[in-house]
Amino acid sequence: MKKLMNEVGHYVDQMLDGMVLAHPELRRLPGTTVLVRAEKADKVALVSGGGSGHEPAHGGFVGPGMLDAAVAGEMFTSPTPDQILEAIRAVHGDQGVLLIVKNYTGDVMNFEMAAEMATMEGIHVEQVVVDDDVAVQNSTHTIGRRGIAGTVFVHKIAGAAAEAGYPLETVAAVAKRAIDNVHSMGVALSPCTVPASGQPSFQLADDEIEIGIGIHGEPGVRREPIRSADDVVDTLLDTILEDAAVQAGDDVAVLVNGLGATPLSELYIANRRIARRLAKQGVNIQQTRVAEYMTSLEMAGFSISLLKLDHELAKLLNAPATTTAWRS
Amino acid sequence: MKKLMNEVGHYVDQMLDGMVLAHPELRRLPGTTVLVRAEKADKVALVSGGGSGHEPAHGGFVGPGMLDAAVAGEMFTSPTPDQILEAIRAVHGDQGVLLIVKNYTGDVMNFEMAAEMATMEGIHVEQVVVDDDVAVQNSTHTIGRRGIAGTVFVHKIAGAAAEAGYPLETVAAVAKRAIDNVHSMGVALSPCTVPASGQPSFQLADDEIEIGIGIHGEPGVRREPIRSADDVVDTLLDTILEDAAVQAGDDVAVLVNGLGATPLSELYIANRRIARRLAKQGVNIQQTRVAEYMTSLEMAGFSISLLKLDHELAKLLNAPATTTAWRS
Repeated sequence: MKKLMNEVGHYVDQMLDGMVLAHPELRRLPGTTVLVRAEKADKVALVSGGGSGHEPAHGGFVGPGMLDAAVAGEMFTSPTPDQILEAIRAVHGDQGVLLIVKNYTGDVMNFEMAAEMATMEGIHVEQVVVDDDVAVQNSTHTIGRRGIAGTVFVHKIAGAAAEAGYPLETVAAVAKRAIDNVHSMGVALSPCTVPASGQPSFQLADDEIEIGIGIHGEPGVRREPIRSADDVVDTLLDTILEDAAVQAGDDVAVLVNGLGATPLSELYIANRRIARRLAKQGVNIQQTRVAEYMTSLEMAGFSISLLKLDHELAKLLNAPATTTAWRS
Repeated sequence: MKKLMNEVGHYVDQMLDGMVLAHPELRRLPGTTVLVRAEKADKVALVSGGGSGHEPAHGGFVGPGMLDAAVAGEMFTSPTPDQILEAIRAVHGDQGVLLIVKNYTGDVMNFEMAAEMATMEGIHVEQVVVDDDVAVQNSTHTIGRRGIAGTVFVHKIAGAAAEAGYPLETVAAVAKRAIDNVHSMGVALSPCTVPASGQPSFQLADDEIEIGIGIHGEPGVRREPIRSADDVVDTLLDTILEDAAVQAGDDVAVLVNGLGATPLSELYIANRRIARRLAKQGVNIQQTRVAEYMTSLEMAGFSISLLKLDHELAKLLNAPATTTAWRS
């Protein structure tokens, strides 16, 4: 295992320190793994988070127009309820808090527990659970579909709704509509290594790829021989399009998300195929994002997320946001 | 070799297509590997470029506040003079063109040749050559110091100067001042594989790192056993600081540049050490950037760039820019 790190046990702590040292617009709550905006905003507050190892998710999406707080767990491990509660306490105002949770059993359980504790303290909390991964129905650590990179669209849209002054119930409803309309699927070309284990999360032969991989290296739907980028894109996009029921004339946003070690050039090669396929079907791409938004450490591979837009979702997606990993 | 690509010979072409399909604010000159802004600006025009494989450099820095055109060569290969000339022709207005060239023998020769051809056509062209890499004096493909990630600071500062309406000679002078004040050095944890060769550019043992690597996998100054992130940072930063003559009270900007496969979390761990070291020395960090700005395909590793700021350089660095890979 070759990692640019110091003691394994300090990985997450030192990463968070390095992040706030780079970005003075972020603040770390003392003694926690919670990043918040340096300045508190008067609106519905948004809290998300999850295991570390998916950077820039979620701290990279804290800022005006997106999240108010991100809670980091240990590597690929759900944040604890007390850390989530600290985040809720720090950012809540009069207008309540929305928790945006990726669908993993541990995350759902711990965010739920934190929500209950916050409610007992008189804080109004709502939750939405993102389950955008169309690859598998149930999987390691998850009942139902997993939450993956499409979550970033939900951060953006809920963030814009909160910034626009919508009340909590409406922000939650808009976030749910975004969740219902976002569909994702990924593929891995190589595994990643969690620092504490020191071993790759799985093994892939030199000519093999794993279709439908999760962001923690959970098994996908099948292993197949490596083939052309266009063929790989088609495999993912066919499944996504079938599930998303996207039709000619529909407006969509596309997110081509690098999992960590895949060069940006290859993500653009993938995007070429995605854009051409959608254009051929008469689908209107309103916005495309190509970068690393939700990674799996140094895993090679990528995911495609397709968000079907109505008028309001499009408006909220295009609204200004100023975070370290998303600007619009 | 596992790559997300189609035919090797179409790699650069399809990457550029995918890029303009994602970003309608970019336009590809038909029949070329040149990306330009969709809308021409009335000011000194800035052209940069170089071999492909360093994405987002340089197409990701085309846009308001930075470059007007980026010329892509084949993988790790200088763009040809005729392609550079096409870029100059497309973007030049009444106020002339500044070429920002990284110091590699092929790049310098081809940009020089294009400049001569453009001059014969009556276009006023100036050039600056970036040689920020303090690791080695001469190296494979290069006489003198190599140009690496610090080049992005030069794009930004020259871009702001052009946008502010400075005349060509002044934009060139400001760019040269940025070059004189930027110092960089990198380290590799793993090699990359150029698609056409199919073989890793060099071999590193499982416990070895290459200090002072170039962005094409050119040899560095020495191979050493892998050690802590803090120690690796210290090795790079000691060399940079010695060369940069940065002192207590100086203002600087820091760029922590991922080479391709290094997780953002590890870049932040590195930044923690950088920020603390500089603070301890009484150096004021005015701005920190942590991301992939100039990569070497899927090489693991990173580089540090330190830009010493005077009042004008700071102002230009902070001026607005709207490109796909840099916003401020």
